[in-house]
Amino acid sequence: MRGQAIAAVRPRVVIVGAGFGGLEAARALAGAAVEVVVIDAKNHHTFQPLLYQVATAALSPAAIAWPIRHLLKTQANARVLMSRVVAVDPTAHQVLTEAGPVAYDQLVIATGATHSYFGHDSWEAFAPGLKTIEDALEIRRRILSAFERAELAGDDGAAPELTTFVVVGGGPTGVELAGAIGEIARDALKSEFRHIDPAAARIVLVEAGPRILPTFSEALAADAARRLARYGVDVRTRAKVVDVDASGVTLEDGRIDAATVLWAAGVRAGALTADLPGQHDRAGRAQVAADLSLPGHPEIFVIGDAAALASPDGRPVPGIAPAAKQMGAYVGRLIARRLSGRSPPPAFRYRHAGDLATIGRGAAVVRLGAIQLTGLPGWLFWGFIHVYFLIGLRARFFVALDWLWSYVTYHRGARLITGA
Amino acid sequence: MRGQAIAAVRPRVVIVGAGFGGLEAARALAGAAVEVVVIDAKNHHTFQPLLYQVATAALSPAAIAWPIRHLLKTQANARVLMSRVVAVDPTAHQVLTEAGPVAYDQLVIATGATHSYFGHDSWEAFAPGLKTIEDALEIRRRILSAFERAELAGDDGAAPELTTFVVVGGGPTGVELAGAIGEIARDALKSEFRHIDPAAARIVLVEAGPRILPTFSEALAADAARRLARYGVDVRTRAKVVDVDASGVTLEDGRIDAATVLWAAGVRAGALTADLPGQHDRAGRAQVAADLSLPGHPEIFVIGDAAALASPDGRPVPGIAPAAKQMGAYVGRLIARRLSGRSPPPAFRYRHAGDLATIGRGAAVVRLGAIQLTGLPGWLFWGFIHVYFLIGLRARFFVALDWLWSYVTYHRGARLITGA
Repeated sequence: MRGQAIAAVRPRVVIVGAGFGGLEAARALAGAAVEVVVIDAKNHHTFQPLLYQVATAALSPAAIAWPIRHLLKTQANARVLMSRVVAVDPTAHQVLTEAGPVAYDQLVIATGATHSYFGHDSWEAFAPGLKTIEDALEIRRRILSAFERAELAGDDGAAPELTTFVVVGGGPTGVELAGAIGEIARDALKSEFRHIDPAAARIVLVEAGPRILPTFSEALAADAARRLARYGVDVRTRAKVVDVDASGVTLEDGRIDAATVLWAAGVRAGALTADLPGQHDRAGRAQVAADLSLPGHPEIFVIGDAAALASPDGRPVPGIAPAAKQMGAYVGRLIARRLSGRSPPPAFRYRHAGDLATIGRGAAVVRLGAIQLTGLPGWLFWGFIHVYFLIGLRARFFVALDWLWSYVTYHRGARLITGA
Repeated sequence: MRGQAIAAVRPRVVIVGAGFGGLEAARALAGAAVEVVVIDAKNHHTFQPLLYQVATAALSPAAIAWPIRHLLKTQANARVLMSRVVAVDPTAHQVLTEAGPVAYDQLVIATGATHSYFGHDSWEAFAPGLKTIEDALEIRRRILSAFERAELAGDDGAAPELTTFVVVGGGPTGVELAGAIGEIARDALKSEFRHIDPAAARIVLVEAGPRILPTFSEALAADAARRLARYGVDVRTRAKVVDVDASGVTLEDGRIDAATVLWAAGVRAGALTADLPGQHDRAGRAQVAADLSLPGHPEIFVIGDAAALASPDGRPVPGIAPAAKQMGAYVGRLIARRLSGRSPPPAFRYRHAGDLATIGRGAAVVRLGAIQLTGLPGWLFWGFIHVYFLIGLRARFFVALDWLWSYVTYHRGARLITGA
């Protein structure tokens, strides 16, 4: 594990990050004569597509996150180190972790993305984003606390800013958060307050572009916007945020006082990726070659949200789970072939399966090639796909049961305010 | 709600704390012509008897905690305020919360207990206790992180103190924690580490008295000690802790180096109770009259772990959930009768149903009057009783399923390291 241990008999593949991409890369190396070392600052792999359900009190963290070493338990050539990687030293062929250096023969950077505030990092304290379990618990705390504070203020007259929620960013995460806050306000909290009517909460979805869900078709985006409006979400497009502070957001054309502001507007690669040699795009992602390696460093690969790559048709490979998984599988296969002396596979090709976003109870938008689904059929398909892709029988069974219970009762199972 | 609102038509009963006692008191007032105000610093009621299962990664917090206002949703005369009560003003008949003063006509203090370090408050940072969901998550973090750190240190030679766990206090909580850490080490983490053998972890249960489980019979305590030993727990009785620091504990007759020390040795009433007028016992509990009121203040009641009361036979009413519930129900009934002009009920009498403690997979000790159960029968009874007393169909169903799954697979469902 340490720098001195570089003279291992089997070549060592170090994978930094155990998200969708890193985990898939590790698994693709299961049969190879290599030593796989997976390093992650967390002990768990997070199923990010359902993180918004933790943030909105529908699911517990453990329903969508699993210990990385449990997932790789049966892969004899893999070991897992829980530590933060602070730097890559391409010359010395080692990564520096908080627990010391780890030498590599082949390196896979799969550290994903973090929130981007477009140069306004001070906004983060007022408008948290949603990338980790901790983020989700913080957002859950803010949403539920807002209603509690409004109830406390009840006797002192209206305090509408306490039950005003602004979600910045009209992509799938923003749409899902806004829709779920609507469900909390209308359904889950019904009849539980004496001074306020949670259903009167104001939810504003702010999008700088001309429409929400820009990666979806115009028809699907319009359907989503209509349904959000029906659920009480005020959708504001062409609305550019110019400031965020403790009491709300300032748009180019006005101000919204809100105790709770959530950020789903932009992502950028983390510092580790930004520090890699070579070219980067504006979001700090590393420009990779057609085989996902870093130009000039055939032994370093960057995959998933940390990589910038255009498909042959010029469109960028999107920052979604299926893309990360395909990249991980590709790189794992490539390394296995390379280290066993076989010819490399042809250039990576991203295959886009489709786009999904859920809006709320009984409504989602789905595009799968020529097929488009909305409303209940879309929602059922969305639910089925997400349960299918959860890891392990237990998670599938428990999440499906949780959803069934919530659908029948309108309740949410994890309405806890924890932490500071 | 504010001080000015004292002129309410219905008398107001303020209940501070929504644990077993406070919640029961609120419910006992459901039919009374009063205004019930339940104030708690948390938004949730915690099922404390299963908190050790959250601390040992078996259950998620939401499986054993529910929003207080959800539990009181259908009780029309009750409202819930989430705020911390910082002081009681018996003269002005109001409690001071962080959100302002709240006037009362009748007051029920049900704030429970916190950990006691017997004057060594500096030990708390090194040896957290287990009273809240946050405590449980902190303990979970420490237990799971210890194994991760040991794995990281693996190449540098043995670091036995990293996988040494000391539990101080041989009551039910200490026994349950020690047994569950044994299960984690032997079963849940099996085959997941490459450098260390989790099953070689050292678990020491330290008890100052002559035996563990002092409230149980000698035979049951001996059975528990035997089973703990079989599960690899080193039980040390007559072992007095003289110091706790970042690297372990010092006993009167020796030193144990341990990265993880947990505290289950003593409790004391919180500051609010200690500041009440009147007599207090050594643990800061308020001495109450036979009707659970504060002598000289017939309008103030103290119940549950905050109250010191002896049964007619001289034995103190124990600090367990059934006692708190009985006290809550009694006080609710008493207040309802008093405010409707009826005669007060006879003095409170505690009825002891029994004692239960689980040791680990397939073993518990149970005493119900003349009946004593150990081993698997005890464990099945323990599980049944705890599922039965959980609140709501959902919690019962999910916890029972979680346990069944864990029993069959030997896994634990919530092995997440979260927080700082």
